[in-house]
Amino acid sequence: MIADYQVITDRDETGDLPAVVREVVLDYLAAGIDPDRTTIFTHSAVPALHQLMLPFLSLVTVAELERNPTVKAEAADAVGRQGRGMSGLLLTYPVHQAADILAMHGNLVPVGADQLPHLETTRAVARRFNQRFTAAQPYFAEPDALLTDSLTVLGHDGAKMAKSRGNALELRASEDDTAAFFRRARTDSARHITYEPEQRPEVANLLRIGAHFAGTTPEALADAIGAAGAGRLKDVVTEAVVEGLRSLRARRRALAADGAAVVGEVLARGNARANVLAAGTLTDVRELMGMTY
Amino acid sequence: MIADYQVITDRDETGDLPAVVREVVLDYLAAGIDPDRTTIFTHSAVPALHQLMLPFLSLVTVAELERNPTVKAEAADAVGRQGRGMSGLLLTYPVHQAADILAMHGNLVPVGADQLPHLETTRAVARRFNQRFTAAQPYFAEPDALLTDSLTVLGHDGAKMAKSRGNALELRASEDDTAAFFRRARTDSARHITYEPEQRPEVANLLRIGAHFAGTTPEALADAIGAAGAGRLKDVVTEAVVEGLRSLRARRRALAADGAAVVGEVLARGNARANVLAAGTLTDVRELMGMTY
Repeated sequence: MIADYQVITDRDETGDLPAVVREVVLDYLAAGIDPDRTTIFTHSAVPALHQLMLPFLSLVTVAELERNPTVKAEAADAVGRQGRGMSGLLLTYPVHQAADILAMHGNLVPVGADQLPHLETTRAVARRFNQRFTAAQPYFAEPDALLTDSLTVLGHDGAKMAKSRGNALELRASEDDTAAFFRRARTDSARHITYEPEQRPEVANLLRIGAHFAGTTPEALADAIGAAGAGRLKDVVTEAVVEGLRSLRARRRALAADGAAVVGEVLARGNARANVLAAGTLTDVRELMGMTY
Repeated sequence: MIADYQVITDRDETGDLPAVVREVVLDYLAAGIDPDRTTIFTHSAVPALHQLMLPFLSLVTVAELERNPTVKAEAADAVGRQGRGMSGLLLTYPVHQAADILAMHGNLVPVGADQLPHLETTRAVARRFNQRFTAAQPYFAEPDALLTDSLTVLGHDGAKMAKSRGNALELRASEDDTAAFFRRARTDSARHITYEPEQRPEVANLLRIGAHFAGTTPEALADAIGAAGAGRLKDVVTEAVVEGLRSLRARRRALAADGAAVVGEVLARGNARANVLAAGTLTDVRELMGMTY
């Protein structure tokens, strides 16, 4: 799902959304996601999904939503940057995510650790819906999280990498931009390179990225660099990333050459399929709630 | 609009909703609402309407929603009766109402005085949407309230009449039930009947109801009863209501004889029409927000 509505949870302007969406789809395709096996759709194209918000909102309290740590953090961020209160959309975001997941009967959800509270809300919504509206067997499965081994990837400023923070390295970046990103990356004052995630998070972040693309471990990469220092580390990581993304970026350029047509076709198919799935779930939900007249 | 989702804002069970919806539609038809001129639809049958919730929720803050006096009162009521916190659905109810009104481009909304804060939210949503997402001319008109001369109608216990409070007289009540309702109606200890809305709200309520159906004024009706007291007042009001609703109730019985077919046909047409209107609004909104890919 391409979460195009998420753009309005914490900012006013939607910007050039069609261009942003196109780039995301191209990233997916270039990275190897096969639209014949995977449904790629935009959030804003599936009305039946959004209707699930109404019954789901009745299953959570405002107090629960306000305790959600991700909502709290994003609200503080929004208030800080914009000097105004949390929007209704931000507060209810975990319920939208529940609708996104349950509309498609997701059972395994690939998330970062910061999204686990949202997934707990989804599990609670599924459980409470079953308790309240199903007599015999549960309708919604409680989805599980699929966490990866990759820890959070840091931006060049040492904070969590996020496009909205302007500290991200994009898949489509050129080789020059990739080199520039790593030259700007924060390190620390100790010259000898060691892999110590707790004590040296920025250096550890670079070592993990480099090791991933070089097919080695962060520890081995640290040993290989040793006294050559942060400058050498950045060169090594840049080279590994450029090399590791070379074929993906080549595929991406080929796709982008006729990008609008490719993306339009992928989204048309994906949105149609998502509408069928969400409409089926909504029909089931309305029947279970006795809302068929 | 038949607000079938409203049943879950303040209670767990949906009960026999199809029967409830059927009775509401029969009330509308018996009262003279003409489905050839008026679109009658159920809230749960119009997915595009609900999708408007997402952009609209981004235009109001949680603090604004929490200040809404109707939300506050209903939340206190729900907490008192069920011993738990306010649901997300109750907090966001004014935004649902904004979607209900604006999806249909309503410009004049017949409401009771207690709904005026909700209408203010709708006006704010329309205004802010226009400011944020339209360049030249505004897209949504800010709807106005259409208040009636009828003040709040009280139930037999002297509180606001509401089906959910069990203190209501239904249009479809039999003559015996109508008489029983007025026999139970609260009055006061002063024998002489006078029309003093501030000092004697329950007596004034009966006088207004009776005068409406008898085609007179509350003051004239009070003078006509005078020292005959509350018992006589109740008899007079019962007779006026039974007489005044006789033809409506006859139409209602005739319609109810093949009620399921009539109601099914009215809702099928109304829901189809409402979907066309709401889908058109959603398409416009997505275009204005730059969400067409």
